[in-house]
Amino acid sequence: MSNLTEKAIARSTVFQGCLLRLDVDQVELPDGNTAPREYVRHPGGVGIVALTEENEVLLVRQYRYPYGEILTEIPAGKRDPGEDPLTTGMRELEEETGYRAATYTPLGTLYPTPGCLDEVVYLYLATGLTQSEAHPDEDEFVEVERCPLDKMVRRVMAGEITDAKTQIGILKTKLLLESKEG
Amino acid sequence: MSNLTEKAIARSTVFQGCLLRLDVDQVELPDGNTAPREYVRHPGGVGIVALTEENEVLLVRQYRYPYGEILTEIPAGKRDPGEDPLTTGMRELEEETGYRAATYTPLGTLYPTPGCLDEVVYLYLATGLTQSEAHPDEDEFVEVERCPLDKMVRRVMAGEITDAKTQIGILKTKLLLESKEG
Repeated sequence: MSNLTEKAIARSTVFQGCLLRLDVDQVELPDGNTAPREYVRHPGGVGIVALTEENEVLLVRQYRYPYGEILTEIPAGKRDPGEDPLTTGMRELEEETGYRAATYTPLGTLYPTPGCLDEVVYLYLATGLTQSEAHPDEDEFVEVERCPLDKMVRRVMAGEITDAKTQIGILKTKLLLESKEG
Repeated sequence: MSNLTEKAIARSTVFQGCLLRLDVDQVELPDGNTAPREYVRHPGGVGIVALTEENEVLLVRQYRYPYGEILTEIPAGKRDPGEDPLTTGMRELEEETGYRAATYTPLGTLYPTPGCLDEVVYLYLATGLTQSEAHPDEDEFVEVERCPLDKMVRRVMAGEITDAKTQIGILKTKLLLESKEG
């Protein structure tokens, strides 16, 4: 197996904001040449596929500013520094939808766009839901919806659901439940 | 349905690089308050699930600098400005793997992380493969592998494949082929 590793030579942090940091590193390539690498540091996030006893998925609709579109997504949020992903997931589910879950099953992680971002998103399947009260963050405006899991699978397959974590969470949940039934 | 839209009030472009641009906008929220939005502009990309007649998927292993890890991904690349996504996909498949395809079937798009990035990734299923010659970009170091589709589905479900476009491409291909068989 050939060496594919790139080594950092120099780093310039060109932006440090409330959410994002942007670094431009000079790296040494496997052949000894150098190249720049522009990439964004992100605190990471957690997404929750919350499944009701009627096999419906809880969804949030929210305006996503970079696209100028209202997207339908699974409940999700950013991790506080050093926070356990499951703690983030439990908090975000309750904040955005007003539901708590009895059981959380890990659905793996996803790297959204590995060439230019270091974000890791943890996914969980949440079951045994009980209702409490939604209380979104002050600058967060969301609408909660429910959709049968099988209909969500069809919407993902039809290209109607664009958010990556939602596509992955829905399709993994579908295949996981099929494997348990089968 | 309530109004969820956020309106731009002011924009500051804090970084413009070769690949990425980072903007910080002030926006007016649905309740009339204001908030900052830090987000990254990206040219967008295309990923290809290339399936051989033996039902094997072509994969590329490459070092992903933001994670410091070698990832296994479907062939993919960035769009040139204004480029048709299918043209990008055909070029990247041939550059990275040395294969051309007779048929491309759209598998929808994905938004990697919609809170802070405007990237759109187009996915295609490529079949009817014929071998030509790989010629990666000068600063691109990749290894090509093959893996049976069903094994790739198991690797995705086991959490061994982290790249978002690869998880979505593999699971959508699996369900699409099942729906055609069924």
